Amino acid sequence: MKYKKLEESLLYDGSPIEPFWAFKEFKVKGSSILAWIGPMEIKPEELIDYEDVGLEIKSNKMIHFIIEHFDIQPADIKTCYHRQRLFVMIVKDILSELGIKTTRSGDDIYFEGRKLSVSIATCSNSSMKIHFGMNVKDEGTPDDVETIGLLECRKDLDYKKIQLLVDKISESYIKEIDSIEEDITKTKVF
Amino acid sequence: MKYKKLEESLLYDGSPIEPFWAFKEFKVKGSSILAWIGPMEIKPEELIDYEDVGLEIKSNKMIHFIIEHFDIQPADIKTCYHRQRLFVMIVKDILSELGIKTTRSGDDIYFEGRKLSVSIATCSNSSMKIHFGMNVKDEGTPDDVETIGLLECRKDLDYKKIQLLVDKISESYIKEIDSIEEDITKTKVF
Amino acid sequence: MKYKKLEESLLYDGSPIEPFWAFKEFKVKGSSILAWIGPMEIKPEELIDYEDVGLEIKSNKMIHFIIEHFDIQPADIKTCYHRQRLFVMIVKDILSELGIKTTRSGDDIYFEGRKLSVSIATCSNSSMKIHFGMNVKDEGTPDDVETIGLLECRKDLDYKKIQLLVDKISESYIKEIDSIEEDITKTKVF
Amino acid sequence: MKYKKLEESLLYDGSPIEPFWAFKEFKVKGSSILAWIGPMEIKPEELIDYEDVGLEIKSNKMIHFIIEHFDIQPADIKTCYHRQRLFVMIVKDILSELGIKTTRSGDDIYFEGRKLSVSIATCSNSSMKIHFGMNVKDEGTPDDVETIGLLECRKDLDYKKIQLLVDKISESYIKEIDSIEEDITKTKVF
Amino acid sequence: MKYKKLEESLLYDGSPIEPFWAFKEFKVKGSSILAWIGPMEIKPEELIDYEDVGLEIKSNKMIHFIIEHFDIQPADIKTCYHRQRLFVMIVKDILSELGIKTTRSGDDIYFEGRKLSVSIATCSNSSMKIHFGMNVKDEGTPDDVETIGLLECRKDLDYKKIQLLVDKISESYIKEIDSIEEDITKTKVF
Amino acid sequence: MKYKKLEESLLYDGSPIEPFWAFKEFKVKGSSILAWIGPMEIKPEELIDYEDVGLEIKSNKMIHFIIEHFDIQPADIKTCYHRQRLFVMIVKDILSELGIKTTRSGDDIYFEGRKLSVSIATCSNSSMKIHFGMNVKDEGTPDDVETIGLLECRKDLDYKKIQLLVDKISESYIKEIDSIEEDITKTKVF
Repeated sequence: MKYKKLEESLLYDGSPIEPFWAFKEFKVKGSSILAWIGPMEIKPEELIDYEDVGLEIKSNKMIHFIIEHFDIQPADIKTCYHRQRLFVMIVKDILSELGIKTTRSGDDIYFEGRKLSVSIATCSNSSMKIHFGMNVKDEGTPDDVETIGLLECRKDLDYKKIQLLVDKISESYIKEIDSIEEDITKTKVF
Repeated sequence: MKYKKLEESLLYDGSPIEPFWAFKEFKVKGSSILAWIGPMEIKPEELIDYEDVGLEIKSNKMIHFIIEHFDIQPADIKTCYHRQRLFVMIVKDILSELGIKTTRSGDDIYFEGRKLSVSIATCSNSSMKIHFGMNVKDEGTPDDVETIGLLECRKDLDYKKIQLLVDKISESYIKEIDSIEEDITKTKVF
Repeated sequence: MKYKKLEESLLYDGSPIEPFWAFKEFKVKGSSILAWIGPMEIKPEELIDYEDVGLEIKSNKMIHFIIEHFDIQPADIKTCYHRQRLFVMIVKDILSELGIKTTRSGDDIYFEGRKLSVSIATCSNSSMKIHFGMNVKDEGTPDDVETIGLLECRKDLDYKKIQLLVDKISESYIKEIDSIEEDITKTKVF
Repeated sequence: MKYKKLEESLLYDGSPIEPFWAFKEFKVKGSSILAWIGPMEIKPEELIDYEDVGLEIKSNKMIHFIIEHFDIQPADIKTCYHRQRLFVMIVKDILSELGIKTTRSGDDIYFEGRKLSVSIATCSNSSMKIHFGMNVKDEGTPDDVETIGLLECRKDLDYKKIQLLVDKISESYIKEIDSIEEDITKTKVF
Repeated sequence: MKYKKLEESLLYDGSPIEPFWAFKEFKVKGSSILAWIGPMEIKPEELIDYEDVGLEIKSNKMIHFIIEHFDIQPADIKTCYHRQRLFVMIVKDILSELGIKTTRSGDDIYFEGRKLSVSIATCSNSSMKIHFGMNVKDEGTPDDVETIGLLECRKDLDYKKIQLLVDKISESYIKEIDSIEEDITKTKVF
Repeated sequence: MKYKKLEESLLYDGSPIEPFWAFKEFKVKGSSILAWIGPMEIKPEELIDYEDVGLEIKSNKMIHFIIEHFDIQPADIKTCYHRQRLFVMIVKDILSELGIKTTRSGDDIYFEGRKLSVSIATCSNSSMKIHFGMNVKDEGTPDDVETIGLLECRKDLDYKKIQLLVDKISESYIKEIDSIEEDITKTKVF
């Protein structure tokens, strides 16, 4: 599983959740995590959460992670949501190590009751996709949701620390998936 | 998914990891978590971790959780290890809320470098099984492993708090699995 | 699994067979049966039976059932056709209890050689869908097929009885699926 | 799928539910239905229904059907129970054509409140198995269950008619499974 | 599995790789191989190999094979690529019997370093599809690839021999898939 | 996927086909090919081919390959037999490059009508296993089968060449499986 951090400030408009986006846009082939910092404004036609239809989903500056898995064929959304939860829990755990104590409800992370993140998981027949976005600043987010950004959670965070955070999250997730794969090869089944 | 806390102090000898144990021993039918406090000493013939062959796996007093899932047919060990990781991360998270800061490596939880827990996941064709055991006291554990018990992690823990902890872990896990199931029903796939 | 009977006389134009229709149109989330009485006229672009291409599929008044299942991931059309057959056999059985003796061929029900029903099953990666429609009256059906409606099968049927029939079919199907799920949890596998 | 009727009066002791029984005992290879008339007395060690542990399951004369399917890999018990229900509903339907009106609850068939049949489904990783047994006479059945045999349901049944019944049930089931297989090949998926 | 050889000289424009093409165009229902001799020029919108985007894929005269499998539900691309490899290896083997010694790299066959064939595999949720095309003559192929045609590999090949080759390849593949299916029914699993 | 050549002359008694044999005997963890040269005499209780029951399966000197795959969960025998065929076809192809022209029927390889090899595939819920054995000399094989060994196929083969052959087969198979895995990540699905 490859990890690639994009340097550019890419708009997350919803299209990166489509299968093969990493390959089509960045020639990253196979299972991967791509991460970058950029704004979000999901185009209505790219919405895949039927509960969000009609809502604004946007933020001026977020850390974005796009994950694609090809290891399970056919891909299924149930396994994908399990992995999304693992990812979100890893994020929460690493934030906690940074002194940012959050709460989690499903795939949403909150700091002092304010929403810090958005996430979705989906799949096609051949790959599983996860998006996780976390506000860097509380700017440009919808008016009807109490939101917060990482920089408001902890004042002394700077961009260098945020870059390290992005790397640590990505690498921890990859290590987790690898360790699951390895545990299978040591366990008797009935 | 049912949650049942056993009152008796049952020895964990490895046999509870077998499929249908909850039904055969306690008439608990369907997907379930059973939890209890009791010793552990795994009989060699019940060992299912091929890396543990020849090792002693024991402790005088542990919280035990035995989980069985029937919702995926055929059952597979890969999904089961994903769920095991979710469970272990939920435990770590709830311990953290109690002020017990631990580290995790795969399915093992450590406190100040000392091993607090053991875990395994397995399956038959029709059900997935998870065992998670956490030392209450650091007694009766193998000599060649640095271990610790919950009561050593935080001095003011008492049995009432431990009972609440057991309930909270179980209920959080059930809620997590339910919420994954629900997210599937709102998400467009490709 | 939820059962919802729609009061309105909705046209079945083929679109209800699409995944997530129940949620998008009626906010019914998760596995469900929706039933209603209304006309049918399938738009050519909504046809999913390749053998029906070019045919008229229509009727002035039918009982419609739309079923969606999310319990198996990924969804597959083979399991879905098994469930469709269970549904059709339940319908035939309940009609028989009402004194309406029919014959069945695959997913079609006939009364005295005249076609009483239409049905199709399909799936996306994340849900299985079934449509079953049964003529209430023999009106507005294609000229080249011998058809019949429930009211012609048994003269003393009235709308109240038909409503009870709709409920009984839906509830029997839900009960059947539940009982299968339960049988899994009591049976040894090899 | 092959259908073979055994001439001998074989005791059903539970062992025929094991995978590959048809091949090992009768060289019938591949998916098959074997049917015969004979007694039943299940050996405790052959019991696979955990709810039946400790119960007597026996009858002096039954029609037995043993079905094995290899078409789905890996085999799973959920699909197998769907097929078992199809089989039981086909039996009920054909009995009804013979003028024997029964009721069904899950996989059990009753005549006037008395139990006419027993059934179980199971699987290994590579095949699905179904047993269905129907009393010919109400003799040798457990004392604590109200049972009945086909010959008590309809007085004018003779062995020739019963043989025809066995053939019709088997052939209808095979035809049903074939027709499901065929419907898959004509239906658009999403 | 059916084998049908088309007499007409059909252009392969990429559309035959779509699910249900054989049924929609030629009323061939179920698992099948269709074969014909004709040109190839893939329309950009029909390209399914993301690595080929922007490339010309064409040839004036090729033997085309289009395979569709419905036996595994849900269909998956991993199994499909396994079958594609079996197909390509069968082709190589039969060419070798004709005295045409080729080399193979994945799904490409070369003769003296020149590319003889193209191939792709894909699936929908309900069927697996394979295309394999082999140049008859080295005409009309892309300028930037060294290609060759069968008639250049062995001078004394004529159309009658090529027709026999097409038949032999198709029949060998069908026999192979059947023999796999049969081996399942004789083997103990753990 | 790991490749390990064993130096010792191990008897193939059937037990290496059991899941986790490579790990339990040689600490080779994960998907692997183990190869060695040694005799074969399958113990009746280790026979997993129901068609071979009662037959002698033996040879004084064979090249043995034992393959285990953990990449597909749950494992299934159908995919495993596809891989076995790929393996056998790779062997045939590499023998052909050595000037040894053989014929193949299913998983058996023949030279001038004499049997050169034996093979079986099986699985547990968590791994797929393949055994392929090829006679080095035609000694100690069953009396009732016409057999041959590699050294009889081509007189100038020596042990060094046979060692290279073993390596080439193993490496080609691993490369093939890898290339399939990679092709999945470049192909659009429907």
